[in-house]
Amino acid sequence: MGNLRPAAFTAVELTGDFWRERLETVLTRTIPSQHRKLAEQGILESLTIQHPPPPLRIPRNPQGFTAQIFWDSDVGKWIEAAGYALAHRRDPKIEAQVDAMAQALERAQLPNGYLNCWHIARCPEERWTNLRDSHELYCAGHLLEGAIAYYQATGRRQLLDVMERYVDHITDTFGTGEQQKRGYPGHQEIELALIELYRLTDDRRRLDLAEYFINERGRGPHYFDAEAKARGEDLHAPSADRYEYCQAHQPVREQTEVVGHAVRALYMYAAMADLATELRDEGLRRACEVLWKNVTETRMYVTGGFGPSAHNEGFTADYDLPNDTAYAETCASVAMVFWAWRMLHLDLDSRYADVLERALYNGALSGLSHDGEHYFYDNKLESDGSHQRWAWHDCPCCTMNVSRLVASVAGYFYSTSDDGVAVHLYGGSRARLRVGEHEVTITENSDYPWSGFITLHVDVAEPTDLSLKLRIPGWARSAGAKVNGSRIDVAADTQHGYLEVRRRWQRGDRVELELPMPPRRVYAHPSVRADRGRVALCRGPLVYCFEQVDNPTAPVSLIRMSRDAPVDVAPRADLLGGVVTLASEGSVLQTSDWGRDLYRAEPPRVAQVKLTAVPYYAWCNRGPNPMQTWIAEQ
Amino acid sequence: MGNLRPAAFTAVELTGDFWRERLETVLTRTIPSQHRKLAEQGILESLTIQHPPPPLRIPRNPQGFTAQIFWDSDVGKWIEAAGYALAHRRDPKIEAQVDAMAQALERAQLPNGYLNCWHIARCPEERWTNLRDSHELYCAGHLLEGAIAYYQATGRRQLLDVMERYVDHITDTFGTGEQQKRGYPGHQEIELALIELYRLTDDRRRLDLAEYFINERGRGPHYFDAEAKARGEDLHAPSADRYEYCQAHQPVREQTEVVGHAVRALYMYAAMADLATELRDEGLRRACEVLWKNVTETRMYVTGGFGPSAHNEGFTADYDLPNDTAYAETCASVAMVFWAWRMLHLDLDSRYADVLERALYNGALSGLSHDGEHYFYDNKLESDGSHQRWAWHDCPCCTMNVSRLVASVAGYFYSTSDDGVAVHLYGGSRARLRVGEHEVTITENSDYPWSGFITLHVDVAEPTDLSLKLRIPGWARSAGAKVNGSRIDVAADTQHGYLEVRRRWQRGDRVELELPMPPRRVYAHPSVRADRGRVALCRGPLVYCFEQVDNPTAPVSLIRMSRDAPVDVAPRADLLGGVVTLASEGSVLQTSDWGRDLYRAEPPRVAQVKLTAVPYYAWCNRGPNPMQTWIAEQ
Repeated sequence: MGNLRPAAFTAVELTGDFWRERLETVLTRTIPSQHRKLAEQGILESLTIQHPPPPLRIPRNPQGFTAQIFWDSDVGKWIEAAGYALAHRRDPKIEAQVDAMAQALERAQLPNGYLNCWHIARCPEERWTNLRDSHELYCAGHLLEGAIAYYQATGRRQLLDVMERYVDHITDTFGTGEQQKRGYPGHQEIELALIELYRLTDDRRRLDLAEYFINERGRGPHYFDAEAKARGEDLHAPSADRYEYCQAHQPVREQTEVVGHAVRALYMYAAMADLATELRDEGLRRACEVLWKNVTETRMYVTGGFGPSAHNEGFTADYDLPNDTAYAETCASVAMVFWAWRMLHLDLDSRYADVLERALYNGALSGLSHDGEHYFYDNKLESDGSHQRWAWHDCPCCTMNVSRLVASVAGYFYSTSDDGVAVHLYGGSRARLRVGEHEVTITENSDYPWSGFITLHVDVAEPTDLSLKLRIPGWARSAGAKVNGSRIDVAADTQHGYLEVRRRWQRGDRVELELPMPPRRVYAHPSVRADRGRVALCRGPLVYCFEQVDNPTAPVSLIRMSRDAPVDVAPRADLLGGVVTLASEGSVLQTSDWGRDLYRAEPPRVAQVKLTAVPYYAWCNRGPNPMQTWIAEQ
Repeated sequence: MGNLRPAAFTAVELTGDFWRERLETVLTRTIPSQHRKLAEQGILESLTIQHPPPPLRIPRNPQGFTAQIFWDSDVGKWIEAAGYALAHRRDPKIEAQVDAMAQALERAQLPNGYLNCWHIARCPEERWTNLRDSHELYCAGHLLEGAIAYYQATGRRQLLDVMERYVDHITDTFGTGEQQKRGYPGHQEIELALIELYRLTDDRRRLDLAEYFINERGRGPHYFDAEAKARGEDLHAPSADRYEYCQAHQPVREQTEVVGHAVRALYMYAAMADLATELRDEGLRRACEVLWKNVTETRMYVTGGFGPSAHNEGFTADYDLPNDTAYAETCASVAMVFWAWRMLHLDLDSRYADVLERALYNGALSGLSHDGEHYFYDNKLESDGSHQRWAWHDCPCCTMNVSRLVASVAGYFYSTSDDGVAVHLYGGSRARLRVGEHEVTITENSDYPWSGFITLHVDVAEPTDLSLKLRIPGWARSAGAKVNGSRIDVAADTQHGYLEVRRRWQRGDRVELELPMPPRRVYAHPSVRADRGRVALCRGPLVYCFEQVDNPTAPVSLIRMSRDAPVDVAPRADLLGGVVTLASEGSVLQTSDWGRDLYRAEPPRVAQVKLTAVPYYAWCNRGPNPMQTWIAEQ
């Protein structure tokens, strides 16, 4: 199945309950409330260049947020989320809001195409003098992605035109030419946007610029050193130590370990995978594969969270995955969805989709509250009750990263090649796809992720030879399938985690897929110190957790499960918009008989207790309360 | 047994192997090597006032240590350790070194008695302007304690005279009089020294000054605020928040929770207990009892370590006792020995001696290496192999705190009252005591802490009615005892953990005490998160740990013990100067069959393994290597 390409988000309609609910929430609650927050925080106003600019601390802002150099990126991500959402249902009010932003940005743009509102308003002379910290290219990338998504959803191209002029300016400014700066972004992002723009416009210069940024990164003499020196800064530590944070410590093809700021890292790896696909660049592909192994084999939370440390918002050491202090930024899980998606298109293997799904349903989705207006920035796997969702943040990056992901999730369901279709995600969808010369409509019905019973109808205008590849998730043991009611041999026909049904399809053909979803225990590699002697409960793609609110008789930090206690599936239509809970019996350490002893010779007594677990993504929607994902095993 | 008083360290000779070895090491290795370090670091030189003073970073010092405002205290502690050690064996070289320091200090002393070498050399105009941070009173306290110990050991009083003049100056300077400053030390210590001086000289003004410092502490308006304002500093946080660090957030009698810097806190509580004894002050006694409960019931490591956090070098929250990041400064365990000793003299109860012994044999003793020339500042209960002993430190407080404790340990064995003797520690000793009108010599023979078989000979010139109180440690179950070969009823005759043998003693009377020492498992209160599902091994007063070097076939972080595996006692004369090790069978989590999985459905396999534990105090004497004190229980 060569030359696999994602099916556009505009080609796929989501019909299942799970994603429809999230999508509706994003469209009707999240995007409008985020627009209000952008206004409150002064971000919208910052698009209109004023002299003098508003003060850094916006006095009338009741929460006292400060102005941030990366505000343009927040605007870009909001527009991008809006664009994806509008593809599902147009909304004149949201469109008017985007159009107003586009107009402001067009007015702000300098005659040479430069467009960074912070720099134009506050320090135009400092343009392109501090790529390491200034976020100019990062902001450009997000605005460009917003412009592309909005154009794709609505056909309106004012912002896209503005951004293409800006990209022209960036193309002139950076590169290996004598008059050019040999710089690259301190916070990677624009590479992904440029590749998107190339795919939209077929303008090769966009791909070349992305390639330049990736290949130039981390080379010596170090550009960030040179520009720091030009600014008169002292340089203390060797470049390599200093630049691990932004993965510029060595040329990207030589990098073998995931280090530094997790979001920067994962955006970069995603761009590397895109370039490996577009350029058939084996060096980049190999670098991606080495980095993929490092992160997924030693540095990934069971929730698909990444970057355990708040200190660098990023990666630390192999197997260092603390639960209570997990940073696991929402943005990093979103970024992993991007990277995994691109690896999947380099090499159709369900292990990439497994990680995508893990991050999507757990570490990323947990970032958005049930009401669609509260967020997690860091996604801890254990809480003493002090961790809670917030309504906004000085750095609101995660808020619009999770909304743009949810709004675009239809884009992760299908891919097409010249001779077939690959289905990666389930949950109710209708896709109108072009495969070679053929129009194919696939209608997938399921209650996924709550149930693994999936039916696909394949509609073609006339009998057509096609390969249909259906992902068998890594967690699914003994999957079954039927074509038009006849059982097929799943094990025999599955390669790299995709069940291939290759046949001459006719209108009305039906495939039934059964992915059994018993609750399952998951264990971490013993080198993960925080999880030793512990077990996590999962079902289907979902990781579960124990919230105090569901377990009123036992402090969740003191509960234990025995290795063989049955775990029951208990759907709860009334809870959190309808979820499947898991119920079991466990025990709880007793403290009541300890008196004043801090230490004693008798082990703690235990009492039996009924336990209830909820999906991890859904936790902390009933107020902050203690939570455990990894449970001690008796 | 009213009016219990410690028997002077000069009255007790240590004859048992355990403490003799430590004492010899301190006398022949630690004290001489510390003197060399004091010279290398520039500390000795700092006693000779030079204009201009040497630079803050001493260029010729190969380790690059910086000058410290509290250097006088290091000199004081070294002299104090030397004083105690010299009581065991005089040493002309060490005495000449002390005398040279005394001369330098006498020359440095200002005509009004003031004596702080840092301030005299560098900033005489800043004297007594920043009690919060300047450590002047702390340094004075340590120099005074050194002067007292040296005088007691040698009868030489040059330094004592110097320090009494300085104390006179301090007495004039601080107090409630109109011309006086209402200040008190930012780092408590001098209170203990003043009470010692009072006990030596019977000069009531010394006790009054200690009482003033304790009673004034934390009162409003806050003295540290006033002096900060006088220095022109901005004050941001409320005083209470700011001053918890040094326990000056409220008057000491109102304090109910152990907070802040652990060494400051424990020195202060020790002084409060001393004052409660000397002044029969019930308010201070009650405050001590409340604080004692708080710390021993919720904030004490099983090793008798205190203060889990490096951030404030101190206390955090109830049950917050992490093992791998434990700070548990050596000085804090030493300070707890001081406090527990004073609580024991307020109220003869073995629970105080139990904590004393716990801190002494574990958290404090671990601070000094087997070779006597390396140290732990922080005493972690778990290490991945990166924690190691160091030869010296920018802040060498712990080095001389542990040496002064070891050198003075004879002073913790006996107390006397008007009608009897209490024996608190065992391990081979000969004490010549005065009880009322009688001379009593007690000879105690044992191989404690390796064995609980203890024989005491009581020698009196003529038949004498005396109460002999023998401590029965809290860990000792079913202790037995005989008097002149006849078994006595230990349970019936034991009150508050002391077995009383009250009789008319005759020359040659013999008491045999048996404290059974089976290895025992210890469990922590389930609220101690780090120890849940874990067990510690102890024997007698010693806590044990598993060092990698003794367990070559299993990573100690992955070992587990079953609840019922036998634990054998295995003496090893060849190891670490002769220790008793513990041997058992356990299991170890296997990693070899995990391949590249970070998570999987099958629990980790385990393999059986032989385990060896060594006394905690003795760990990390064979190079840095992984260590676990709390072991997972299967």
